[in-house]
Amino acid sequence: MTYCVGMRLDKGLIFMSDTRTNSGVDNISVFKKMFTWETPGERYITLMTAGNLATTQAVVSVLEERTKVPHERKPSIMEAPTMFQVARIIGETLREEIARMKAAAGPNATTTFSASIIVGGQIKDMDPKLFMVYPEGNFIEAGDDTPFFQIGETKYGRPILVRAYDRDMSFNDAIKLLMVSFDSTIKANLSVDLPLDLQIYAHGSFAGRNRRILADDPYYNLIANQWSEALKTAFHSLPDYTG
Amino acid sequence: MTYCVGMRLDKGLIFMSDTRTNSGVDNISVFKKMFTWETPGERYITLMTAGNLATTQAVVSVLEERTKVPHERKPSIMEAPTMFQVARIIGETLREEIARMKAAAGPNATTTFSASIIVGGQIKDMDPKLFMVYPEGNFIEAGDDTPFFQIGETKYGRPILVRAYDRDMSFNDAIKLLMVSFDSTIKANLSVDLPLDLQIYAHGSFAGRNRRILADDPYYNLIANQWSEALKTAFHSLPDYTG
Repeated sequence: MTYCVGMRLDKGLIFMSDTRTNSGVDNISVFKKMFTWETPGERYITLMTAGNLATTQAVVSVLEERTKVPHERKPSIMEAPTMFQVARIIGETLREEIARMKAAAGPNATTTFSASIIVGGQIKDMDPKLFMVYPEGNFIEAGDDTPFFQIGETKYGRPILVRAYDRDMSFNDAIKLLMVSFDSTIKANLSVDLPLDLQIYAHGSFAGRNRRILADDPYYNLIANQWSEALKTAFHSLPDYTG
Repeated sequence: MTYCVGMRLDKGLIFMSDTRTNSGVDNISVFKKMFTWETPGERYITLMTAGNLATTQAVVSVLEERTKVPHERKPSIMEAPTMFQVARIIGETLREEIARMKAAAGPNATTTFSASIIVGGQIKDMDPKLFMVYPEGNFIEAGDDTPFFQIGETKYGRPILVRAYDRDMSFNDAIKLLMVSFDSTIKANLSVDLPLDLQIYAHGSFAGRNRRILADDPYYNLIANQWSEALKTAFHSLPDYTG
């Protein structure tokens, strides 16, 4: 499994992904699921992937190649005029890779090769945008009503996101919120685990700041330990039942 | 969908189930998913069901008939010598009903007729027991390490159960905990909803106390409203990120 969250804030965008992949509980590995492309002063794009690892790696490789090989450069996410066009290129690439693998594997394949992608970024003179791309190649954009997207194991970590998210929160508060959401997921599902990748994108900076959060990260462990106590305290602060 | 939780406490057993059934979001109904059988001073049994409604109603009807019709009375859950035997009868009945419907529907059926059951109770001179019964007819028993079972939409409401459950908690605290867990689930999944059925069983009483919690229940709404605020307060009480 996988857990990734992308959030739109007034201050910019923030992304967090885990790094565990598994094929059965006895076959786990660490793979990066977050990828960033930047042109200083002009554009910033980050995507995160969930689903079949061969599919998502192929999608990222195709996108990456097109940014480098001049004669195969179109359509390149580094030349698309808008983030909408970036999302469209990613969606088409995803759909094509899934179709290619399905065709090659034939009707008896035991997997669907499916995958989902969260992509966010900003192009000069335009606002930052955040999209969720489906395996069919279509996509939706985050708005004021739904300002964040989750992919993978989304349920355990959702209640706190829904309740504590605030569009004008600071990046540091957003990091705290993401860590709580990831902690709830990691404690409940063995197929989601540290290290975590974190990417912070400040509006208009055209450059992300990234950090890898390792299993011995002092702040993550502080949050993981104190959240259990804070939840218990919150629970006991509720009025008692007297039926 | 469905959400049901059964808990083993030092003081006895407690059960909560929702009442929404759906076949698509445009076809929802209210059905009871909690059923109780009692012989004063001798035995108490409550079960809760999730899954195919025709299957679970058939299982309950068969169990019920066998408690009433003398010549079909064996194997009856009201005569089984232990709760283990009660769980075995329920498991066999569940497996038989699923097999019967599958056989009748043939290989082209578009449903699996599957269902799961939580059953708990007490028989005189023995301790209360709590079991989860699988569609295959086998079952597991709650112990000190895993003192509660969930069926249906289990993920949203699990983190608070894991953290705030305490085996020596009062029934009133357990009701508060269940309401928080159900509120998180109801807020996230349209196919789980009030009214809720609540059943409290005190160790050695051989009689359950039951209550239906309606949509306008003042205490439920108090909890639902205050939990959002309590979660936010808990979140803000955590140490800030300063990376």
